[in-house]
Amino acid sequence: MSYVHLTGTCFSEALGAHGLDRGRFEALLRSAGDAVQSLRARHQDGSLPLLRLPAARDDLEALQPIAKRYRADFDDVVVVGTGGSSLGGQTLCNLAVPGAGPRLHFFDNVDPHSLDALLTALDLERTGFLIVSKSGSTAETMSVFLICLEAVRASVGADAAGRHFTAITEPADNVLRRICTAHGIGLLDHDPGIGGRYSVLSLVGLLPAMIAGLDAAAVRDGAAEVLAAMLENAPPEEIEPAIGAAISVGLAQENGISTTVLMPYIDRLNDFGLWFRQLWAESLGKNGKGTTPVNALGTVDQHSQLQLYLDGPRDKMFTVVMLDVAGKGRVVSPVLAGDGDLAYLAGHALGDLMDAEQRATAQTLIVNKRPTRIFRLGALDERVMGALFMHFMLETIIAAHLLGVDPFDQPAVEEGKILTRQYLAESDAT
Amino acid sequence: MSYVHLTGTCFSEALGAHGLDRGRFEALLRSAGDAVQSLRARHQDGSLPLLRLPAARDDLEALQPIAKRYRADFDDVVVVGTGGSSLGGQTLCNLAVPGAGPRLHFFDNVDPHSLDALLTALDLERTGFLIVSKSGSTAETMSVFLICLEAVRASVGADAAGRHFTAITEPADNVLRRICTAHGIGLLDHDPGIGGRYSVLSLVGLLPAMIAGLDAAAVRDGAAEVLAAMLENAPPEEIEPAIGAAISVGLAQENGISTTVLMPYIDRLNDFGLWFRQLWAESLGKNGKGTTPVNALGTVDQHSQLQLYLDGPRDKMFTVVMLDVAGKGRVVSPVLAGDGDLAYLAGHALGDLMDAEQRATAQTLIVNKRPTRIFRLGALDERVMGALFMHFMLETIIAAHLLGVDPFDQPAVEEGKILTRQYLAESDAT
Repeated sequence: MSYVHLTGTCFSEALGAHGLDRGRFEALLRSAGDAVQSLRARHQDGSLPLLRLPAARDDLEALQPIAKRYRADFDDVVVVGTGGSSLGGQTLCNLAVPGAGPRLHFFDNVDPHSLDALLTALDLERTGFLIVSKSGSTAETMSVFLICLEAVRASVGADAAGRHFTAITEPADNVLRRICTAHGIGLLDHDPGIGGRYSVLSLVGLLPAMIAGLDAAAVRDGAAEVLAAMLENAPPEEIEPAIGAAISVGLAQENGISTTVLMPYIDRLNDFGLWFRQLWAESLGKNGKGTTPVNALGTVDQHSQLQLYLDGPRDKMFTVVMLDVAGKGRVVSPVLAGDGDLAYLAGHALGDLMDAEQRATAQTLIVNKRPTRIFRLGALDERVMGALFMHFMLETIIAAHLLGVDPFDQPAVEEGKILTRQYLAESDAT
Repeated sequence: MSYVHLTGTCFSEALGAHGLDRGRFEALLRSAGDAVQSLRARHQDGSLPLLRLPAARDDLEALQPIAKRYRADFDDVVVVGTGGSSLGGQTLCNLAVPGAGPRLHFFDNVDPHSLDALLTALDLERTGFLIVSKSGSTAETMSVFLICLEAVRASVGADAAGRHFTAITEPADNVLRRICTAHGIGLLDHDPGIGGRYSVLSLVGLLPAMIAGLDAAAVRDGAAEVLAAMLENAPPEEIEPAIGAAISVGLAQENGISTTVLMPYIDRLNDFGLWFRQLWAESLGKNGKGTTPVNALGTVDQHSQLQLYLDGPRDKMFTVVMLDVAGKGRVVSPVLAGDGDLAYLAGHALGDLMDAEQRATAQTLIVNKRPTRIFRLGALDERVMGALFMHFMLETIIAAHLLGVDPFDQPAVEEGKILTRQYLAESDAT
């Protein structure tokens, strides 16, 4: 397996009253077994397209010419999308080697100041755009798209849209599709059966990654590895995502754990925390259920959040994501460090310090009887990212089963969308 | 006042059982009055140096030559510091106009990959460094400092340290001070009475801002305005930070509100959320007390967290920070939008959409009976940032009084530091 997942420090045998009772955990795990069975059946009958992505390769072949052209034609590529249409690609593109392809920009807010700054800084002649909206009508994405389209038409030429833009949206007729057709912009199909927050393994996450020079097939290979472990006829106690879901839900229901902290240490996983945050919150936060995901970042948050984590309310569980970085990076010069107060750093690589810190934080959380699980990654590459994505998607779906909510809908956000339109209409009237 | 702070939607008269009882609020506000009196006394006798900063100007004059030299000599400036030594400056530097000064980089993690990438990308001949460590012994900061020092010595010259580095640390002898003296590096004093997370109005936050071309005196002017409103002989019900503290603590104690979400909309306030997150968590999270701060960002998190916020557990209060952006930014072309599905966007500036969205989100939270307060900012500039910083520092200190904890210590984080050294020592032995 591309990652090792340790779970030994969330239970009452180690944490006493602050840990999850083993009997309760086993009952939840049996129930998780039903979700696993259902996922196996849906893999078999193809009714959950997400589960078919890891093995697919033909669609990636079809994307290669687009990625190749964008890499050849453009120095900058702007991905316009919001939420699930943006976070997966953002996460993956952190793996890109600087200078080895176009610079990727993910524009996912509607800040007028930021858009002005971006469009002013870019050489539009050498800039490509990727517009991602499943419905083809997302207000934020469509506004930014139309502003970028006008900017390209004004500065490059009225007939330049087809060369500079590509859009990803559902096959059914929608306004994004109509506008693209009118302007000769290429369209790629967003699978209607894959929601935004589950779309990272589809072209939504992988086309930006390919443009950035990453190996999309390897992302799927990593995902396939985790999926295969679940599809095998193994009992739930051998399936990591089922274990994770049972721990999370058990701690929430039995131990008052209302918050789940995902704490990677390395910078390139910071956006992964944001991706996870949407997945978990939007999939489970309904009918008064769900727990609050919090993303933290290693040593930065040791100096920001750790005091609260160790000595604040006992309402959190922790998932520390460690990368094996010992020996990596530049070395602290023994001559400069001297043999006094800094002798303990002398001759150590910066990675040694990070390694010691990530282990010390996990250990300190455990000693303070805070439920803690650890993902140890041997490397950080496309394959490992694919494994992490699949692990957390499966864990979220299984947790939804245990909570009795639908992991694929988001009914509560409609109200705000309606009000937004109303406020815009009112400002028309004034 | 530089900002308007509305508080009308956290109480039971609007939110029923999900809001704060008015009688309980008034009792807390009376208790907050004691904290206000104590702060007034400490302002008077000078025992809390933080409260003296807003009126100070001499120290800024002394920093001008350094800022001027850095602006003249360098294209890039790396601020090496962690937690409170970094977040305030980061937040302020978001206001800088791109191209109007050196690029500021805040290196606040110990990721070996990130440091390699940064040092490789920089032209060290044209790069300045600012090293910030109150104690002068922070492991992360010292490691990165020594690696950068060696890089500059190797690539620019063994005698270049004095020109490229400046350090901020306490006046008492420490290892950072000794190394700087040995290498001819200029030292600036960090006030021993101002902890990192309260240091943004000191040179720690303001020197990076000045290097970026910002008006540090205006930051203090804004802070002075908020402080003056508290120092006047007004009752606590007229002092916004006291009201905020009483609402937060009341909702936590009476309504099970364990999480406080700070949700600005504009990108330039995203780092402000991280600054607040440290301030609140590290000041209040002790003895099992405190609430968990969560930073969110406007339209991005409408598509990520809003489902959880509206329909998940009722354990959160919301502080929505709105900027008046109506009419700002580029306009959606009516020709491109057409008169169909996107007619509601046609002719609107992107700022109109953000304005409608921020109001819609706040309203939707309130309609769903989630305790919500709103900061409406008329502009975003140095003065407003200063006001926001001072508001939240005072609110945090007053909340600590209501909770009965010390807002200025962080006793729990020592354990991890000791373990880190131990793990490093063990890796020496192997």
